[in-house]
Amino acid sequence: MFGNILNLVKDTNPLVHCITNYVTVNDCANILLACGGAPIMADDTEEVEEITSICGGLVLNIGTLNKHTIPAMFLAGKKSKELGHPIILDPVGAGASALRTNTAIQLMKEMQCTVIRGNISEIKTLALGSGTTKGVDADILDVVNEQNLKASVAFAKNFSRESGAVIVITGAIDIVADSEKTYVIKNGHPIMARITGSGCMLTAMIGAYVVANQSDVLGATAAAVAAMGLCGEKAYAKLKANNTGNSTFRNDLIDEIFKLDGEELDQGARYEIW
Amino acid sequence: MFGNILNLVKDTNPLVHCITNYVTVNDCANILLACGGAPIMADDTEEVEEITSICGGLVLNIGTLNKHTIPAMFLAGKKSKELGHPIILDPVGAGASALRTNTAIQLMKEMQCTVIRGNISEIKTLALGSGTTKGVDADILDVVNEQNLKASVAFAKNFSRESGAVIVITGAIDIVADSEKTYVIKNGHPIMARITGSGCMLTAMIGAYVVANQSDVLGATAAAVAAMGLCGEKAYAKLKANNTGNSTFRNDLIDEIFKLDGEELDQGARYEIW
Amino acid sequence: MFGNILNLVKDTNPLVHCITNYVTVNDCANILLACGGAPIMADDTEEVEEITSICGGLVLNIGTLNKHTIPAMFLAGKKSKELGHPIILDPVGAGASALRTNTAIQLMKEMQCTVIRGNISEIKTLALGSGTTKGVDADILDVVNEQNLKASVAFAKNFSRESGAVIVITGAIDIVADSEKTYVIKNGHPIMARITGSGCMLTAMIGAYVVANQSDVLGATAAAVAAMGLCGEKAYAKLKANNTGNSTFRNDLIDEIFKLDGEELDQGARYEIW
Repeated sequence: MFGNILNLVKDTNPLVHCITNYVTVNDCANILLACGGAPIMADDTEEVEEITSICGGLVLNIGTLNKHTIPAMFLAGKKSKELGHPIILDPVGAGASALRTNTAIQLMKEMQCTVIRGNISEIKTLALGSGTTKGVDADILDVVNEQNLKASVAFAKNFSRESGAVIVITGAIDIVADSEKTYVIKNGHPIMARITGSGCMLTAMIGAYVVANQSDVLGATAAAVAAMGLCGEKAYAKLKANNTGNSTFRNDLIDEIFKLDGEELDQGARYEIW
Repeated sequence: MFGNILNLVKDTNPLVHCITNYVTVNDCANILLACGGAPIMADDTEEVEEITSICGGLVLNIGTLNKHTIPAMFLAGKKSKELGHPIILDPVGAGASALRTNTAIQLMKEMQCTVIRGNISEIKTLALGSGTTKGVDADILDVVNEQNLKASVAFAKNFSRESGAVIVITGAIDIVADSEKTYVIKNGHPIMARITGSGCMLTAMIGAYVVANQSDVLGATAAAVAAMGLCGEKAYAKLKANNTGNSTFRNDLIDEIFKLDGEELDQGARYEIW
Repeated sequence: MFGNILNLVKDTNPLVHCITNYVTVNDCANILLACGGAPIMADDTEEVEEITSICGGLVLNIGTLNKHTIPAMFLAGKKSKELGHPIILDPVGAGASALRTNTAIQLMKEMQCTVIRGNISEIKTLALGSGTTKGVDADILDVVNEQNLKASVAFAKNFSRESGAVIVITGAIDIVADSEKTYVIKNGHPIMARITGSGCMLTAMIGAYVVANQSDVLGATAAAVAAMGLCGEKAYAKLKANNTGNSTFRNDLIDEIFKLDGEELDQGARYEIW
């Protein structure tokens, strides 16, 4: 099933508007091209509505947000919402500063995000940070593991119900949840945390997968997460075989996404549905 | 002949001031270093005139233009014009938003650009978008191919006559034209569209080639286009041989520019003069 | 001794706040991750004080400074100073524009920088540019070599005494000096100048090394300089062996930092103490 989702990305070349940080923007553009999509980066308030109108979806990543790009995110988001385009939010560093936390929460509230992807701390910040009791399980720990997996899945489902977005929590175990159904995905490798941008690239790629597969947002998101994890494993195998390091790993990761086909994804994806 | 042009870049290490987008800026800097030039990136209005004064030429790329860098482009452009430095314009995404279209057209009009490089849609937008009848052949299609090549060359020559700039239209077939003479260049590989920045890198490299070869702007531009295409072919051969992907292709492309010498360029360049 | 310093970076994973240029920011993030540290990039005035507070140290790089990031540098710097965090300054292009020169000098004066790293021209600009006689030897040339090494070391020591910072002058020979003691380091390879960012990456890495080794700032800085030079040699050996170019060299350089251990650094570092 994930294979068909991947193939549809390659067949339809979805164009994704990214307002994203300048640290990993080049990697995001190249991973979009690798997976079969296409990127446009534009962040000035004077043009973001026009740009987002010619794209199929919008990725908002607050990694190096600033006074000038924040209003652009809201403008692009509103236009996307009007047009019914998918909006993918990556709340990079939510919790690390009031500016990030508040911006992420406001973005989440003002536009109906289609998918929100972050690590557990970022997602907890969004879920808890709004200042109202949310019934969120206080036992949710800062790392998702086998011990707290059940509680983490319940947290994600609950937050999906409240936010209306598919929730992605990435870590050693990845959770992709809507209010009813959860994919628990066990692909990936810890080395992915030793490059900058593995999260940002995944968020960008979710954009392409969701634009190409709008009838199954949850499945498309899970397929992107599994694809990224699987390619992380393949790239790590090359690192071990060739005794390289994190920079070559980054290149190999993008290369593996470029080469991955639907059949391989179906064979390599390791997940359970909860 | 292209070989001598390349060698002069390596011998003189031209310093190029780039006001460019943050998506591919690192690649632009590295390709300039690869080809024998040197980059300076600076985009604040308070310093661009000074910076451009110590360089040999200026590259303006509107890929992620914004309110703060647009005035810097005009200031740097005016100073460069005063100093008689070559100015290379890359109207990335002209046609995709009014901001891009208007900025590109105004830059083109207010400063005498030496070279303008874009894909066919961007160049058509500049040629047609000014709101006055230009006598441009309405049959020009959105892809340059063998069928419309004659019309495309006529369009490029005509636009060169009107704009005063050498016009570069890149695609499956590349056209490099002034009002009298056109290089039709057939190097390159479609994979080049699967990385971000192959156009931006070429524009930056044209900057270095033109600064080093100001007595033959047309030839210098054509040499840069042929060099990039040839290195794209070489990098693609490595991709096939080693079963890699677009990220490694990007690195190999820059590496091939780094290694390319004049003799290889003369042997590998495939072009006709029209 | 350098080996222990390196190991402490890997054991403590220092988090470094970088306000840096958009040309090499991705490389800076990846080299921090490669060496065992972790990066946070943030440059909006509304959040830099909070962000710097959760980090161990601050790197200020003026490579593409602008009106919006300059005030952020001062705010972050003041907060870091208050907190007693190390501050590393990279005055990229000081001397090339008044904006760069003045910003670098003001940053140096208003906050007690822990380390200042630049090439000889940038460091001379900081030492001489303040407009007051500094007693700096006017014979200091624009390249540090065996002939002027003694005078260069005296210049660095003197400037360290005046500025209160460890002074790093990188070039064919690297000088790392405080007012009393100087490391003269002879690792490295000229190819390092053929990529963008070898200086920026070193400055970022000095940040991680110093945060992890605050009881020996001079030694930590020298260890980072030697590690970068040694990895440059190793990456150059790969370039020769595999006939690659500057882009692959950049990746290999980061990879070598990723792989380098304390023992190798102790064996490969070539330096004298003056």
